[in-house]
Amino acid sequence: MFAPCPATPAPPVAGEPAAVHVRTPIPGPASEALRARHGRFQDARTVHYYQDARRSVGNYAVDVDGNTLLDLYGHIAALPVGYNHPDLLAAWRSGRFDWAAGYRPALGVAPSAEWVDVVEHTLMRIAPAGMAQVMTVTTGAEAVENAIKAAFIRLAARRRGGAPASPAELRACMLNQQAEANRFKIISFDGGFHGRSLGALSATRSKAIHKLDFPAFDWPVVAFPYQQFPLDAFAAENAARTAAALERVGALCISHPDEIAAVIVEPIQGEGGDRHASPEFFRALRALTRRHGVALIVDEVQTGAGGTGAWWAHSAWGLDHPPDLVTFSKKMQLGGYYMSSELVAAEPLRIFNTFLGDPLRGAQLEVIVEVIERDHLLETTRITGNYLLSCLYELSGRHPGLLSGARASGTFAAIDVRDGATRDQIVSRARQRGLELGGSGDRSIRFRPALILEPRHVAEAMDILEASLGA
Amino acid sequence: MFAPCPATPAPPVAGEPAAVHVRTPIPGPASEALRARHGRFQDARTVHYYQDARRSVGNYAVDVDGNTLLDLYGHIAALPVGYNHPDLLAAWRSGRFDWAAGYRPALGVAPSAEWVDVVEHTLMRIAPAGMAQVMTVTTGAEAVENAIKAAFIRLAARRRGGAPASPAELRACMLNQQAEANRFKIISFDGGFHGRSLGALSATRSKAIHKLDFPAFDWPVVAFPYQQFPLDAFAAENAARTAAALERVGALCISHPDEIAAVIVEPIQGEGGDRHASPEFFRALRALTRRHGVALIVDEVQTGAGGTGAWWAHSAWGLDHPPDLVTFSKKMQLGGYYMSSELVAAEPLRIFNTFLGDPLRGAQLEVIVEVIERDHLLETTRITGNYLLSCLYELSGRHPGLLSGARASGTFAAIDVRDGATRDQIVSRARQRGLELGGSGDRSIRFRPALILEPRHVAEAMDILEASLGA
Repeated sequence: MFAPCPATPAPPVAGEPAAVHVRTPIPGPASEALRARHGRFQDARTVHYYQDARRSVGNYAVDVDGNTLLDLYGHIAALPVGYNHPDLLAAWRSGRFDWAAGYRPALGVAPSAEWVDVVEHTLMRIAPAGMAQVMTVTTGAEAVENAIKAAFIRLAARRRGGAPASPAELRACMLNQQAEANRFKIISFDGGFHGRSLGALSATRSKAIHKLDFPAFDWPVVAFPYQQFPLDAFAAENAARTAAALERVGALCISHPDEIAAVIVEPIQGEGGDRHASPEFFRALRALTRRHGVALIVDEVQTGAGGTGAWWAHSAWGLDHPPDLVTFSKKMQLGGYYMSSELVAAEPLRIFNTFLGDPLRGAQLEVIVEVIERDHLLETTRITGNYLLSCLYELSGRHPGLLSGARASGTFAAIDVRDGATRDQIVSRARQRGLELGGSGDRSIRFRPALILEPRHVAEAMDILEASLGA
Repeated sequence: MFAPCPATPAPPVAGEPAAVHVRTPIPGPASEALRARHGRFQDARTVHYYQDARRSVGNYAVDVDGNTLLDLYGHIAALPVGYNHPDLLAAWRSGRFDWAAGYRPALGVAPSAEWVDVVEHTLMRIAPAGMAQVMTVTTGAEAVENAIKAAFIRLAARRRGGAPASPAELRACMLNQQAEANRFKIISFDGGFHGRSLGALSATRSKAIHKLDFPAFDWPVVAFPYQQFPLDAFAAENAARTAAALERVGALCISHPDEIAAVIVEPIQGEGGDRHASPEFFRALRALTRRHGVALIVDEVQTGAGGTGAWWAHSAWGLDHPPDLVTFSKKMQLGGYYMSSELVAAEPLRIFNTFLGDPLRGAQLEVIVEVIERDHLLETTRITGNYLLSCLYELSGRHPGLLSGARASGTFAAIDVRDGATRDQIVSRARQRGLELGGSGDRSIRFRPALILEPRHVAEAMDILEASLGA
């Protein structure tokens, strides 16, 4: 038996199913019929099952075969307040989004007044400490691409010492032959995932399948100083990895003077196996990058917007100085990045595109942020996350050869399985029982639920998970 | 006087203002107050004026100062059926979009049944001839990034002759050190614009401000065989440029065997000065790229979805074989690309991301496509475009030292001004009189209206434009 469920301040979500209900294999025949139709026109092999979008509510997805699943994967960490939150639907029906309903604007050319409200009252309201401005785009990859560009612009401006670009530079860039900029580099960490467009992908170090056959910039990679759990049993190893990573970053800054534009790092590696580094590492990395004039980009695409029990995971590090850039997407519903005032480009139009985000997704984010604050969902996520972690400890204690390394920050949680094949079997069996989970790295199960997840949902999930562990 | 307005099959848009109405300078005091507030948190220097999103209807934007502008720029070519089309608003209110209203899914993991309808009945319904599948993303830059990746995958697969990647290749890619893939190249044309993420940007050759200070891949650029207008006066020069471009592409394919993955080209260079190449050029380019096993990517981000009077500009070329990939975004409201069956990757997950598009924008596209078909807006665009071109000829005939080179395909039109500074003055003066236009290249004015533009709007625009030409 797991511990009794603690209370949270979150109210129940009206209309949420009471429990998982499985009627057919998952995916069932209706899902497979849709996959056959879908697959004629798009790659549908990756689809887990097809959802009944209108009937899914709260933490529960309903599929087209009438199965009700408890969703702790949340569309790869992109579901902030669950399915069809009543406040989102009410806002939709009340006309609150009408300003964003009738056309999609180029936000850098002719935005509407309401967009300025979204920026000021929603995006900046939840901005990480020390951030002066916010840039909006559409996805996490675009967020990283543009954050990197902001770092390149700052580095180039510093190298020029305030002088304008020379005519030779202006000519060379049109031929992709800028001698200086082509040596600019971004440091990233093995296991890091930062997106799949060619710039972001050059910093991504997750899996070969993500990178094979695509040209990449010659940028350096550093071993990520992941922590082994439990921390007290691995204190020396963890400290040694941290020291080695910092030494390597410092050495790269020295061996490539004025070429390292930025270090990009996730607070927790969300694709690369839910690997955590220590607050001490991040504080030292911030100090080191400042010393070398290198931008620190904290990639919060997966960790941001509440899953760790705070708006931004890096707020737990106790930094003396804020990061230079913080990227977001997923639960935020649109992509973008926050930046400190030093990273604001002096000239307009250097970082720009047609859409520059999506006002409709921004309008929805307004409501989502209101719900998260009103319903105390960050506190709920902390309480639920602690309970989830205690359950994962309990579970691994009962299955010591199979499960290990339980870890969580809020409900951003994971547990390791003996090997990858067994992990895949467990995730698949859990889905058959109505529990949707994700894989992370080689052999971890990841939990990325919505912020409305409560301990009672966790209890239901743990029972299903334990029943899915096999012999 | 301009010629009388021809009739079109398009019905009037209910609620559209009757004419331009200017009350204040544009931008006016309310716009400038918003810019001051906006600029504290985002770069607002690029904003022309702030719109009253609810009051803008049809071809007319209403701004926050109560000015009514005739918009022939259309949010950088991203406005398919004008502002607040009644059918879009009715669909919104009727609950038709409810399936897409309550959460933003990861479309590659758990889409809903309605998404399959969007793909089959809307995206594939208007697919260019010869296209087998459609990939959806969110923006034009992401469309290009992924289309390029599809071309790299095909090239690498061919080089391996069906063999799997070697362990050495899998290791090398994690270090950004793939000897072969790092030599893969995309050919693009000077003046081409394909987006601003680092991969797409390596193919973009528009302006130095777009490329300066960013690392770029060492990819070749070819002089774009633009046509000078009127065509009969420049037949020899145009033919010579076409031959030179083809010769250069062929030479690059020969000098870099098995390294050129794709040639990417716009039907009309939309940022690079509205430069047109001939159908003969594109037919020969298709034949040449097929001969060398090089993918042809037709970038229709700006030309696609009806502006040229056809769903896809390249349909006017009379190709024997279709392009391999056709990218889209802007008027389509979400990004993506169509591909022929040879470009469909053998393995899943090689091209993937979290959102893979946006079902809400897809749901709106369903309605937009219905309206375009029901109201004969492609035919309307052809009729209006011909009228617009005749007016531009008339105008340049009356101002021969100032205006020249009128050209159009549908309402995707442009005219050259004596010099860039004068062009900027004319565009600015036209805005003061309530006409919104765009610049293109060094000294062109571009027209990118919605598909509901009618000859009477053109007549109003031409009067304003002529009044804006100055002494």
